[in-house]
Amino acid sequence: MSGGFDRDRKVLIVGLGLMGGCYAQALSRAGYEVGGIDIDSSAVEFAVSHGLVREARTTVDAGFVSRYDTVVFALYPRIFVSWIRQYQDCLAPGTLITDVTGIKTSLLDRLLPVLRKDISFVPAHPMAGREVSGIENSDCSIFREANFIVIRLPDSDESAVRAVESMAEVMGFRKISRLSPEEHDEMIGFLSQLTHCIAVCLMTCKDSSHLVDYTGDSFRDLTRIARINDEMWSELFVDNKRELLAQMDLFMDRFGHLRDALSREDVGAMKEMMRLSTERRALFDKRK
Amino acid sequence: MSGGFDRDRKVLIVGLGLMGGCYAQALSRAGYEVGGIDIDSSAVEFAVSHGLVREARTTVDAGFVSRYDTVVFALYPRIFVSWIRQYQDCLAPGTLITDVTGIKTSLLDRLLPVLRKDISFVPAHPMAGREVSGIENSDCSIFREANFIVIRLPDSDESAVRAVESMAEVMGFRKISRLSPEEHDEMIGFLSQLTHCIAVCLMTCKDSSHLVDYTGDSFRDLTRIARINDEMWSELFVDNKRELLAQMDLFMDRFGHLRDALSREDVGAMKEMMRLSTERRALFDKRK
Repeated sequence: MSGGFDRDRKVLIVGLGLMGGCYAQALSRAGYEVGGIDIDSSAVEFAVSHGLVREARTTVDAGFVSRYDTVVFALYPRIFVSWIRQYQDCLAPGTLITDVTGIKTSLLDRLLPVLRKDISFVPAHPMAGREVSGIENSDCSIFREANFIVIRLPDSDESAVRAVESMAEVMGFRKISRLSPEEHDEMIGFLSQLTHCIAVCLMTCKDSSHLVDYTGDSFRDLTRIARINDEMWSELFVDNKRELLAQMDLFMDRFGHLRDALSREDVGAMKEMMRLSTERRALFDKRK
Repeated sequence: MSGGFDRDRKVLIVGLGLMGGCYAQALSRAGYEVGGIDIDSSAVEFAVSHGLVREARTTVDAGFVSRYDTVVFALYPRIFVSWIRQYQDCLAPGTLITDVTGIKTSLLDRLLPVLRKDISFVPAHPMAGREVSGIENSDCSIFREANFIVIRLPDSDESAVRAVESMAEVMGFRKISRLSPEEHDEMIGFLSQLTHCIAVCLMTCKDSSHLVDYTGDSFRDLTRIARINDEMWSELFVDNKRELLAQMDLFMDRFGHLRDALSREDVGAMKEMMRLSTERRALFDKRK
């Protein structure tokens, strides 16, 4: 199938954490030959012994890396850029590479100027995750019903883009969309990063341990994502700083508006916000 | 059983909305004789035709009301106070009354001075709900695994308190606790009202309809409660104004702290909040 992700492709996963493990699992189950690289030998052993990959290494060498025509980078943004700088000579000419990085504009600003011109890079963002990390928690069922974003670059090779979209379909993603890097970062700043900020702030307001017995679903739902990988998220926040600050300010403005309405007991203004909120939220139920 | 909720008790539910319907359903299923009152004839018909109550009326008269030894008020706070002012003479001497109101201090300030002295009032708050309203959406399975709060008043009759606690057990609540009105309102201001404020503000930040296709679970979880009954919640907010403003300010302070840390790229300060958040949230998982 033209533009598809042929079954004879060989996929190398660089970074065998939660997300890398999910990619490895999904692609191995679909019948692809999958290899892996991670600096942590226990992650490598886990990946091999659990059949997530056929072969995996803790070191990078051209003989191993160049056997793969497709490479997925499941690394934190800065480590991904370092890897490319240090090891991209190991990639075979024409290799298709993609990633799972949660921010795009600042990553591309750093990566594109140094990337070899004979490599096809299709940035992507699988919109799925868990509150735990590590390959031992990998479970590719998180891809079912999840959204997958492919980033459109001005000089993207259409067949490479379609190959990555096809790979996402193979892995079980429900809806696959294309966005520009800027559209992606605004969307992710609002839908994902702002919500994580809110959850963290709510959880750090006070020592709430004595409140566990009284907690209804509301507080649990709003703080589920307050269990957060501080290394990864602080890096993602800084890498999307301008956009995230704008989203935080937008939220603070609305929050201040509601606070003021309550303060002066302006029930009309409060109800107006609640009705708009109810109307908008209904859309998210319908299409779920 | 001493202090229990004997099977021969007759329970009248005043207000056949979502919560009144859940009480009626749970108590009828447990074998109690349950009656109902609502000004809306379609709610009354639904309650009778679906077997949630044995008998129901759209009007209040002493002949009907005085047949019940226990009355549950499932009304908005102000309507509850009006009902007592207007109709409390219909209650039989010694009637046990309880409620489901989401705020307590301001309610008790208005209600206790006017309430007949021969009525035992045990305020309560079932910590359960749905994003939809109306008796047609009543489903008492929402009580399973939910928390139930009983309010301790200085002159509470212990046997009446234990009867309401027993009723909560009969209806399937998991954990039943006693709090003072002030403890309740602080707790509910933080766990429930603040979280609803946040959800409403997040949902009103921007027209997010085009974002539905990219939404992961985070945004859906944080805005589930953004579908909100604006009549009820605006009244509850105003009735707990002092406490809710304090909780909103606490949250804004933390949010401002995180925003400042991001603004100056203080990764250490961001990580510190994330680690505290992760540690505290873990408690809520364990005991779930």
